[in-house]
Amino acid sequence: MDERLEKLLNFILYIDKAKNVFRQSRLVKSDRRENVAEHSWHLALMVYLLKDYADEKINVPRVMLMCLAHDIVEIYCGDTFAFDEVAVAKQEAREELAKKKVYSFLPDDLKKEFSDLFDEFQEAKTPDAKFARTIDNLQPILLDNANDGANWKAHGVRAEQLYRKNEIVKSSSGKLFEVLDKIIKSHVEKGNIE
Amino acid sequence: MDERLEKLLNFILYIDKAKNVFRQSRLVKSDRRENVAEHSWHLALMVYLLKDYADEKINVPRVMLMCLAHDIVEIYCGDTFAFDEVAVAKQEAREELAKKKVYSFLPDDLKKEFSDLFDEFQEAKTPDAKFARTIDNLQPILLDNANDGANWKAHGVRAEQLYRKNEIVKSSSGKLFEVLDKIIKSHVEKGNIE
Repeated sequence: MDERLEKLLNFILYIDKAKNVFRQSRLVKSDRRENVAEHSWHLALMVYLLKDYADEKINVPRVMLMCLAHDIVEIYCGDTFAFDEVAVAKQEAREELAKKKVYSFLPDDLKKEFSDLFDEFQEAKTPDAKFARTIDNLQPILLDNANDGANWKAHGVRAEQLYRKNEIVKSSSGKLFEVLDKIIKSHVEKGNIE
Repeated sequence: MDERLEKLLNFILYIDKAKNVFRQSRLVKSDRRENVAEHSWHLALMVYLLKDYADEKINVPRVMLMCLAHDIVEIYCGDTFAFDEVAVAKQEAREELAKKKVYSFLPDDLKKEFSDLFDEFQEAKTPDAKFARTIDNLQPILLDNANDGANWKAHGVRAEQLYRKNEIVKSSSGKLFEVLDKIIKSHVEKGNIE
């Protein structure tokens, strides 16, 4: 077997670990937490389904790939809960290290491609990255909304935290921001969000 | 909210159920079965990573979408173990029904697109569908190989069954067929495959 193919097959087995990295979000009407592989699958399909709601021109397959590959680094550094402000402050350095480690198993061309996509997603400046981040923000909000806001309530999440995090959504999709805004307001009303 | 967006958001919540549909394959070095969402994520990334090993020209994003969306029908009809010959005989009719049910929640254009992709995958005649099937066949073999063939042993799987199922791989990627062939032969030698 050639060296490239061997590297790729090893990487494919390595990323199986993403199925055992759990996030804060729970599945719809379930106590079970969502793992990184499931989350990434959900995002990629959501990008395809919601592509017409991007306000800027996006490269749909590229945004899908960003969503499929981005969270693999969490195999190495774990998931960071978006509203754990101490963890978030250290998140960038931990993820930078994880990125170097995880993608180092890839052949050089793909290592560069996946690292660049990761950086672009993190920086959230391009239309592609902003839409990927929009979907990544929207998905857990849809799940938690379906679960009557139990996660927000449990963690004492405040509306201002959600709005700060969702500035990106506003700049990428006015229509999807409206969806989020409506959900957040309804949970503030119910007392699930402070 | 417009009717299209409402339909899409409901569909996005509906397919969350795929995270609770379990397959026969077990995760690497684990007793836990893999679910449909995790499997589909793994396939889509594998398509991207292994795209250069397709012998025919393929449309990579289309093959990835096929892999992400195909198994959603199992929310309705469950997974069919590839080597349960009684279940496989009834699989087509059950999946046809499931396809109609599951994709009926989508707006008409996407219903047609997802149904057509599903049919194309099932028929396995086009280069795109053949490569999607190749990856769909390869992935559980890589997992079971990493688990010392425990699943094949437990179900008394025979080499001829594996080779029959993998005719498609041969016609889509000579290189990936070599990988499969080597794995199957090594497990026949170890007595894990009859």
